[in-house]
Amino acid sequence: MKLARFSVDGWQSYGLVEGDRVRVIQGSIFGEHQVTQASYPLDRVKLLPPTVPSCYWAIGLNYAAHIAHQEGALDAERIQRESQGFRPWNKGANCVIGHEDTVVLPADSDYVHYEGELLIVIGKPTRKVSKEEAPNFILGYSCANDVSSEGSWHNDLSNWRKKCSDTFGPVGPWIETDVGDPHQLDIITRLNGKEADRGSTSGMVYNCFEIVSGISQYLTLYPGDIILTGAPGAVEQLSPGDVVEIEIPGIGTLRNPVAAES
Amino acid sequence: MKLARFSVDGWQSYGLVEGDRVRVIQGSIFGEHQVTQASYPLDRVKLLPPTVPSCYWAIGLNYAAHIAHQEGALDAERIQRESQGFRPWNKGANCVIGHEDTVVLPADSDYVHYEGELLIVIGKPTRKVSKEEAPNFILGYSCANDVSSEGSWHNDLSNWRKKCSDTFGPVGPWIETDVGDPHQLDIITRLNGKEADRGSTSGMVYNCFEIVSGISQYLTLYPGDIILTGAPGAVEQLSPGDVVEIEIPGIGTLRNPVAAES
Repeated sequence: MKLARFSVDGWQSYGLVEGDRVRVIQGSIFGEHQVTQASYPLDRVKLLPPTVPSCYWAIGLNYAAHIAHQEGALDAERIQRESQGFRPWNKGANCVIGHEDTVVLPADSDYVHYEGELLIVIGKPTRKVSKEEAPNFILGYSCANDVSSEGSWHNDLSNWRKKCSDTFGPVGPWIETDVGDPHQLDIITRLNGKEADRGSTSGMVYNCFEIVSGISQYLTLYPGDIILTGAPGAVEQLSPGDVVEIEIPGIGTLRNPVAAES
Repeated sequence: MKLARFSVDGWQSYGLVEGDRVRVIQGSIFGEHQVTQASYPLDRVKLLPPTVPSCYWAIGLNYAAHIAHQEGALDAERIQRESQGFRPWNKGANCVIGHEDTVVLPADSDYVHYEGELLIVIGKPTRKVSKEEAPNFILGYSCANDVSSEGSWHNDLSNWRKKCSDTFGPVGPWIETDVGDPHQLDIITRLNGKEADRGSTSGMVYNCFEIVSGISQYLTLYPGDIILTGAPGAVEQLSPGDVVEIEIPGIGTLRNPVAAES
């Protein structure tokens, strides 16, 4: 089941995507709701970020291949420290944008790159659940681009502008509730139509259920909260005019143009 | 003007605090609203966190005296690096609690301390404003306790459980919109009724207007978003049974009991 949020003719709604149409959902997909018979062609609506999270958590350096790739770009000592242990960080809900929204490169950033990732969407209040219980608290999965600016901001010692600048959080196009095994999904990143990276969620250091369980030991995850699960491999710099796509077969394709700050 | 949020008889409302009563506000204090003639005695209502922020930002190590104090507890090299430059971090909206709510010490944390701070409350969408314009985007100020667990979690390289564990974010008791000069306020922290720290907001490294302006260069602050401005001085460990009060004369007193996780 593909659950979206969209706007059309000046109003917003959740919707159920079926083929090339989206059926209107009355209510919130995170609470009571019902799917109506009213529908729109998908190409007539604007897809919004499928959730407005109260918190946007993330797990960094969660794939061996990505850690190896970043060793070239970052200092080895930092990677060694950062690749040990479970340490979520907070991406900031301000940066969330949807499918086809524009990633804007801040004027004074000198190296912004994509990171195509699987996104966990929480369905219920989640606190101190085990990894075995965790699947029951996940509504579904989506595609995400953890847009990041390293370069001169690498020494910030905070992710605030490196990871949380406005528009650095594309998510979508929708939430897929039936992915099968979330640890057997391909993540394909395309830059200007050309495959730039391909990985499998089977390579996660901490899998989705361990991530949800781990975070929930100390803090409550709420319905609609989202969690990045890490980039699987290599990354490349984004430039104005680029188009970046994150495809996860079984979920969909998140597509975003890139522009310079005006 | 003291703007609160409260619950009474099973419903919630914003309110205007006048003396020992709170008048009901219809609508949201961050949008259209009006103050009604209906009121309740303050001691009959439960004060809630005065805002439900979309993001909870924070500035660390923003007072020389606090940096000096922490040098004893943390390693000097880290302090030296962290005390240079402007680097907000994200406290996580999940941890926000209100006046008289209980701070719960996680079972496996070994050193949790208070940090009494001035809290900025944003009133309007704020993006790329100058420090001179910043006051127009601030609705008011409140008291905050940036509850933090250092100790064994010091090496986390993320604030996720050190700073963002549930209940680690007491704010309140209300928002004061008329503080005069926010950089001439005393911050008094009492532990079990005894003064434990006293500082002045005149000692900030980055003042409130520089903080709001600085963050807004890269990301949008939204109405109701809150920003911690740093602890002025020394901190002490919290233990079950403690009561911690953060008083900022001209605003009010935020009071929270402390309990062990059950």
